[in-house]
Amino acid sequence: MREVQVAVAKAPKYASRESGDTVEVVERPHGGLSVLLVDAQGSGLPAKTLSNLLISRGVALIKEGTRDGAVGRALHDYLYTLRQGRVSATLVIVSVDLQTQTVVVSRNDECPAYFFSPAGIEVSDRPVSPLGLYRGTKPVIVEKPIADYLGVAVTSDGIVHAGERRGTPLDGQAFLQEQLARGWTPAQELADALLERALWLEEGRPHDDVSVVVVTIAPIEDSDVPIRRLTARLPVGVR
Amino acid sequence: MREVQVAVAKAPKYASRESGDTVEVVERPHGGLSVLLVDAQGSGLPAKTLSNLLISRGVALIKEGTRDGAVGRALHDYLYTLRQGRVSATLVIVSVDLQTQTVVVSRNDECPAYFFSPAGIEVSDRPVSPLGLYRGTKPVIVEKPIADYLGVAVTSDGIVHAGERRGTPLDGQAFLQEQLARGWTPAQELADALLERALWLEEGRPHDDVSVVVVTIAPIEDSDVPIRRLTARLPVGVR
Repeated sequence: MREVQVAVAKAPKYASRESGDTVEVVERPHGGLSVLLVDAQGSGLPAKTLSNLLISRGVALIKEGTRDGAVGRALHDYLYTLRQGRVSATLVIVSVDLQTQTVVVSRNDECPAYFFSPAGIEVSDRPVSPLGLYRGTKPVIVEKPIADYLGVAVTSDGIVHAGERRGTPLDGQAFLQEQLARGWTPAQELADALLERALWLEEGRPHDDVSVVVVTIAPIEDSDVPIRRLTARLPVGVR
Repeated sequence: MREVQVAVAKAPKYASRESGDTVEVVERPHGGLSVLLVDAQGSGLPAKTLSNLLISRGVALIKEGTRDGAVGRALHDYLYTLRQGRVSATLVIVSVDLQTQTVVVSRNDECPAYFFSPAGIEVSDRPVSPLGLYRGTKPVIVEKPIADYLGVAVTSDGIVHAGERRGTPLDGQAFLQEQLARGWTPAQELADALLERALWLEEGRPHDDVSVVVVTIAPIEDSDVPIRRLTARLPVGVR
């Protein structure tokens, strides 16, 4: 058997209560999981509201069986219709699709996706428009067969630009390379490590929302009763 | 600060590939999390499809800001309209609502919900109809203020009926009491323990899908950069 692990680690911009980045993980109707990461233009409540609106429609489409490429197109068309090209949002969908037996990354985002395996790291950074700005925008899609020791990492731009103001930008590829050189890592450990590095480069005060999504596939022992697990941890202020 | 933990552990009926139980965790638009657990009547693909359809609408409604009680009513009305009272489904929604600062459990399910704290366990088992059968069905709702060391456990009926065929039924309340007597337990540990006990009583071959959802609230150290985390683990067969 194999185990698919999905891990999300995210933090809001320093001194903000709300992260404008929104991430949801859903079961696919024909088997597997999808992770959606939306980062709407702007900050604060308006950005969060738009992120929520877009991700909510995206989740609904995925759960109705819509293919990922059509979800990206639909969310673009929706935002373009709603705000007439004046507001943008980025969208990344990472799916482990058990029907097609593939891992699919659909990007409408300048941030690269990293496919990693013991053979090395492949950066998927073909230029693509975000949602909402230009008529006819569609996602850049990369699809790979499900295989043991295959992983994907994607981030919001808060991670990509971490450390830039201090002249010490984060090199995502080098960081992942370094982590993987120590052996295969559980998804949550890798996501946490990448987020921690970004926070460290920002001296603990991130200038933007920072989100990391890691998906890994690795062999596990066969089991008669395959158990699925999901854990969410949400720090909240005491009122 | 406090940490809200949500944990899900689920397994399909023995020798089934698909669990008819469907669980999704989503962010609430005004802050907090909701967990939805749907168990549609029947088994196999038709039940799974119906579960997916209902939970997908439920997730969309929650993300649009719909109050939980209205989500239960809407999903009932939808199923009742779709299948004219011939098919039922159970629905439980557990929400940690940061706007109202409450934990809300909405049940359309014979399975009890357990509120637990160091003071003891409170069983919420007021009779209620499932979705889909009778006109005007509405959920039974219990709401409690968010507090440290407050928890909720809910399950699908596969857990409630575990061990019955062998004359050794699972006593959920006694089991939780026993666990809590050892001290406060992380949500995932508690969910795993309850699922494991049910599987043990079923001799590793559950007669039904078995799902456990545990939500806990506990104090954590204050942090300038509150990090949210989500981990999903999905065992899959190798084709």
